[in-house]
Amino acid sequence: MPSHQLCHPHITRLRLIGGLLWLLVAGLTCFGNFAAASAGGDPLPSWSDGASKQAIVNFVEKVTTEGSPGFVPKNRRIATFDNDGTLWAEQPVYFQLIYALDQIKKLAPQHPEWKTEEPFASALKGDLDTLAASGKQGLMKLIAATHADMTADEFSDNVSQWLKTARHPKSNRPYNEMVYQPMLELLDYLRANGFKTFIVSGGGIDFLRVFAEQTYGIPPEQVVGSSLKAEYEVRDGKPEILKRAEINLINDKAGKPVGIHQHIGQRPIFAAGNSDGDFEMLEWSTAGQGPRFGLLLHHTDGKREWAYDRESHIGRLEKGLDQAKERGWIVIDMQRDWGQIFPDATN
Amino acid sequence: MPSHQLCHPHITRLRLIGGLLWLLVAGLTCFGNFAAASAGGDPLPSWSDGASKQAIVNFVEKVTTEGSPGFVPKNRRIATFDNDGTLWAEQPVYFQLIYALDQIKKLAPQHPEWKTEEPFASALKGDLDTLAASGKQGLMKLIAATHADMTADEFSDNVSQWLKTARHPKSNRPYNEMVYQPMLELLDYLRANGFKTFIVSGGGIDFLRVFAEQTYGIPPEQVVGSSLKAEYEVRDGKPEILKRAEINLINDKAGKPVGIHQHIGQRPIFAAGNSDGDFEMLEWSTAGQGPRFGLLLHHTDGKREWAYDRESHIGRLEKGLDQAKERGWIVIDMQRDWGQIFPDATN
Repeated sequence: MPSHQLCHPHITRLRLIGGLLWLLVAGLTCFGNFAAASAGGDPLPSWSDGASKQAIVNFVEKVTTEGSPGFVPKNRRIATFDNDGTLWAEQPVYFQLIYALDQIKKLAPQHPEWKTEEPFASALKGDLDTLAASGKQGLMKLIAATHADMTADEFSDNVSQWLKTARHPKSNRPYNEMVYQPMLELLDYLRANGFKTFIVSGGGIDFLRVFAEQTYGIPPEQVVGSSLKAEYEVRDGKPEILKRAEINLINDKAGKPVGIHQHIGQRPIFAAGNSDGDFEMLEWSTAGQGPRFGLLLHHTDGKREWAYDRESHIGRLEKGLDQAKERGWIVIDMQRDWGQIFPDATN
Repeated sequence: MPSHQLCHPHITRLRLIGGLLWLLVAGLTCFGNFAAASAGGDPLPSWSDGASKQAIVNFVEKVTTEGSPGFVPKNRRIATFDNDGTLWAEQPVYFQLIYALDQIKKLAPQHPEWKTEEPFASALKGDLDTLAASGKQGLMKLIAATHADMTADEFSDNVSQWLKTARHPKSNRPYNEMVYQPMLELLDYLRANGFKTFIVSGGGIDFLRVFAEQTYGIPPEQVVGSSLKAEYEVRDGKPEILKRAEINLINDKAGKPVGIHQHIGQRPIFAAGNSDGDFEMLEWSTAGQGPRFGLLLHHTDGKREWAYDRESHIGRLEKGLDQAKERGWIVIDMQRDWGQIFPDATN
């Protein structure tokens, strides 16, 4: 541990003799103390004081304290976060589904047959119940029409364009205002303590990568998601990645540990989710040796956000609630544990 | 740019008044200059002076000079390296194939039928020509027997154990002494300049991850390679990743840009390879906008390593040699450009 002596006011009475080297050591030493003091201010101001917040801080202190039995070296400090319902709102409907429906509307003039063909007819009418009834086959048709048979660059451009004007159907806010302020703080806090933070989402990897860096500070190579098969092709002299209408990985439920293994190649020591789609990710992560942290966000705040768990079609949380205690996972009660939910101070 | 004034010897005559803040600024400023001076010593001592080395240094200086038209922000500084023949020797046979053959020998007592069954009979005799003649189907049988139907942890443990005693068939050196010293320096140099370095190899991702961090300083999440399909399963209460005997991705040739897209999600600005298996990776990387660097290692040193290119079964380099000039790729002549090849100073 750096000595605090060097930062004491007495320093002002010292003459510098050693020059560069001393200055370097002292500057860095003070910087270390300064950063620690700053972090000590409260790295998680949107989290209400209580057992949940304390558990997070205790865990981070344990794994970052050199010489302690719980110490974890930096290159093993892997933290994974689900996206929908964990980092941003997923109610009343996934943002990516809104994207798909908007794309269908945009493409409809070129497809007059969609007026009577499912799932497109329901998609155009915004009839989500009938759309859901079209099942996996219907969903694949929707994905094929809106996410595939185009280059990766074309897809990214489409999503970027859409995000500029996309609004949440209930709050009418832009997508990046529907993220959870406490989770942004948690991501920052973990990174400031040497963690590498990843998104591990059931959502599409190419969709997530368009906004993950700007929104969460998570670069494209740290995003794991569901994916379509891709091919490399040189088209008119221009190399392109083509997205095919064929599933490569469904990164949900038991697919999450598989996605983690393929993309990250090591077991996270911290995993956060909010639904039973995250159960296996938490199970896989927290079954490893040494200190582990499993976090389940329980949506309990019907006033400021949405209250849902066991009966919800989106983000159903049942198995996780039943087993969290015996597995040592921390269940965050959104109403109790979060003083603020969205980034602006008005909510 | 930080001022050099603060590091001047006159500093020793100054009284410190501002205390902490001043110390902090000065210390960090001097640290910056110190680091730059240290790097100026020669970050690539095993590289002979000449056009190749100069091209690398020029590129790195260009993309890291803030305000210059070629500046690339840190989070876009992605560098990808092939492994076999680029970071370590691949002649006379890939290390991973030696692993597979050794495993076959180890497992043979439990499989008496292998004595007469191809490709196992040839594998046991070490008859690589007949083994090669068994084609893709034979190779898949070999992979299935040595890389699949086991947990990811079991596989890693097997590889770790094997690496402890594995020796190169010609030099009789451990595998980690068959890496190229100039490439270790290049990896370090790029990382010191804010690059994130990745392996993008035709070799197996789970095989590479066992030694990539210790050998090259590349963590598991920055390794991209060929992979088998995997499944998640809880066995006797213990969560496991199971490796299946089915190809997920062949990360070679046109598969490399696909692997890069899936794992990294952004186009590298620096790509290094040594064979036509790397052609598409270099093509994809260097076709992006802004400064790009394509590097092909040409094995020209039959005395210190191996000399091979157009006619070689392993690491054939033909298309790359023919097109490097027009594509602006730098061809490293191992004999001319590398003063030292392997890490020990005796070669």
